[in-house]
Amino acid sequence: MKKLGLLLFIAVSLQACSQAQPVPPVQVAPPPDKNVAVYAELPEGHDAAQEIGIDIEDFSKKDELFDIENNYSEAYKSIILNEKYGKDITYVIGHKSPDSDAVGSAIAYANLLNELGIEAKAVTAGRINNETRFALNYYGMEEPEILTDATGKQFVLTDHSTYTHSIDGMRDARIVGIVDHHGIGDATNTELIFVRSLPVGAACTNVYMAYKECGVEITRDMARVMLMGIISDTSNGTSSMTEMDYKAYNELKELAEIDDFDALAKGMADGLLNYDGMRPIDIYKNDYKEYEAGGHTFAIGIANVDNEKDMYDRADEMRKAMEEHYDEIGMDMLFGMIKNKPQDQMLMVCYGDGATEVMEECFHNYDGEKYFVFDENVSRKKKIVPPIMKALEEAASSESSK
Amino acid sequence: MKKLGLLLFIAVSLQACSQAQPVPPVQVAPPPDKNVAVYAELPEGHDAAQEIGIDIEDFSKKDELFDIENNYSEAYKSIILNEKYGKDITYVIGHKSPDSDAVGSAIAYANLLNELGIEAKAVTAGRINNETRFALNYYGMEEPEILTDATGKQFVLTDHSTYTHSIDGMRDARIVGIVDHHGIGDATNTELIFVRSLPVGAACTNVYMAYKECGVEITRDMARVMLMGIISDTSNGTSSMTEMDYKAYNELKELAEIDDFDALAKGMADGLLNYDGMRPIDIYKNDYKEYEAGGHTFAIGIANVDNEKDMYDRADEMRKAMEEHYDEIGMDMLFGMIKNKPQDQMLMVCYGDGATEVMEECFHNYDGEKYFVFDENVSRKKKIVPPIMKALEEAASSESSK
Repeated sequence: MKKLGLLLFIAVSLQACSQAQPVPPVQVAPPPDKNVAVYAELPEGHDAAQEIGIDIEDFSKKDELFDIENNYSEAYKSIILNEKYGKDITYVIGHKSPDSDAVGSAIAYANLLNELGIEAKAVTAGRINNETRFALNYYGMEEPEILTDATGKQFVLTDHSTYTHSIDGMRDARIVGIVDHHGIGDATNTELIFVRSLPVGAACTNVYMAYKECGVEITRDMARVMLMGIISDTSNGTSSMTEMDYKAYNELKELAEIDDFDALAKGMADGLLNYDGMRPIDIYKNDYKEYEAGGHTFAIGIANVDNEKDMYDRADEMRKAMEEHYDEIGMDMLFGMIKNKPQDQMLMVCYGDGATEVMEECFHNYDGEKYFVFDENVSRKKKIVPPIMKALEEAASSESSK
Repeated sequence: MKKLGLLLFIAVSLQACSQAQPVPPVQVAPPPDKNVAVYAELPEGHDAAQEIGIDIEDFSKKDELFDIENNYSEAYKSIILNEKYGKDITYVIGHKSPDSDAVGSAIAYANLLNELGIEAKAVTAGRINNETRFALNYYGMEEPEILTDATGKQFVLTDHSTYTHSIDGMRDARIVGIVDHHGIGDATNTELIFVRSLPVGAACTNVYMAYKECGVEITRDMARVMLMGIISDTSNGTSSMTEMDYKAYNELKELAEIDDFDALAKGMADGLLNYDGMRPIDIYKNDYKEYEAGGHTFAIGIANVDNEKDMYDRADEMRKAMEEHYDEIGMDMLFGMIKNKPQDQMLMVCYGDGATEVMEECFHNYDGEKYFVFDENVSRKKKIVPPIMKALEEAASSESSK
């Protein structure tokens, strides 16, 4: 099923690449036959549903095609225009340890606000990774500036809605909008603002919809940065794709006018494996998120490799860096995921009081000495974070009921 | 300015009432000249902005008219259809101590899901108040059932996104959507879901937009329940109105085909003052919300009166009930607001360890014995909750840094 989906996907991609580039607005290519392939590639987990015993219906039955060109909405445009932005600039920013979707969504949404006459600027929450760097360099576009303290400034958050994933000072900043695709996080405020979190594969797909609603033309460069985000978050259209993501992916690919799309995709994939010149602790923090549950703090960093030997070497190196920098990081527990996607295998390592016990309780795959060994690559967001949070919360509530 | 706005509003209302009822879809009436009146009635507070010194621009400059009939979006319809609802029913529910906007938005959004072929049912988080009861009775519509335990069930939340405002068990339920107008609360999940929180005056305005996007016809009864919510949350179109709320209010009023609109509005307003047969503790909990900040829990209940004598009598009665039921309620601090809207005055009373001190720090209007005396009616959400939360958080952080 997976291979069939991939083949169909490649067929569609090749078809798209071989066509002459039409002028926008284009007629988007139809997605591959969705009953065969598309939804076979959806993310596996609907954890809350499974946990409480709700039987997930086959949602492809409810699916129908739609016309994205018909998505212009003066109402949404008015809502964006009528937000009270203040006279200061609005920064548009993704999450810490920025990935290509965080960076692409911030650049594209800031541009949308500019086109609507609102002074906005895309920034990043830290050094961009080598995947994003490759793409921006390939496009000949500049990297956004880095901003590390939010205090007293005004923001639209993209690709996150959780304080621990924001730069420092966000609790003392003003949030005027959220454009996300992660359910809903813990960022709160008492002002009425525009929050749009959609169940799609990439935040850039959400931004693409906002362009359609506002009737703002998607330029070649904006198509390129949004495509960059979708390529990154969906492993180039092979996972987590919804019908909406296909619409966005197909049209953006045409508008982006990329000479050699395969070279872009390969360069980005190689960028994910490229840690040249980085210390082990930089690698740990390259794709790193912090969490809180049951009164404990923890963090999970991810590194990618492309063979089994590197996976074990990277795991040892990462475990050592986690121990050396434990005090400086200041989290109660540190976890590391080392993903070998080509062989579909993964290791986890951990450090900190109680970390091994929590992992053992959650995953039952400890080798007894160093590694938690997974025979598949799993999503941090869907498969690792929820059981750890649940274990910490249950431990806290059984502690407090004593 | 305020009176001018009201006069203009009444003029528009009378005009709308005197017109013959056209068949839907109707051409909506233009809002009153917005530079004169509409935005003079906006909520006063943009607290985060003021606090960090951001100068709010006059947003009427950016405003422009729009055509809501042009809001059909196959993309949003597809997103609602493709949400993974599971085979069980989806409950649509507003916040505890339900008001007319919470009830109206739940009824109308459940109906929208039904029209899209999704099994959904509106429920309320408790006994409806006498304002809502009057309206539903006037319409000849049934009250939704009450649901008090969310555990193991599946929900769309309307008019709130905060666990403490949800019924018990919501942390052990599955949330598949949020339709709100309160910024963003602390409800979180790890699933990708559709969250839409808009900066508008009523959750029912957000639901009205969803009908437009899905191209679902608004029946007379659904127009009536959505109008009920907007009337309630905007004091019948006189406060917190945005351009979007005017669009909704005007069209829903026509579609609702109400014989005597003034009788409806007056009956609802009287309902807010009607506590017949209710014990003082029931009155305290009639419009009641719970909060957490700095490791403390607190709650605020609101009662309405229409003269100064009743305001003081109600305050004494409420303060006594708060003391008698303090243990049973289980919050650290209890606050009560008694609003006399006709004379634009308000009292607050409080009970619980540290409650008086927190109030004194926040408002400087203690009479030294019983009452905090306000010479205007203020919003719980905008003017009372934020300073109390800030005071509790600052106290907690100065405590922990000792």
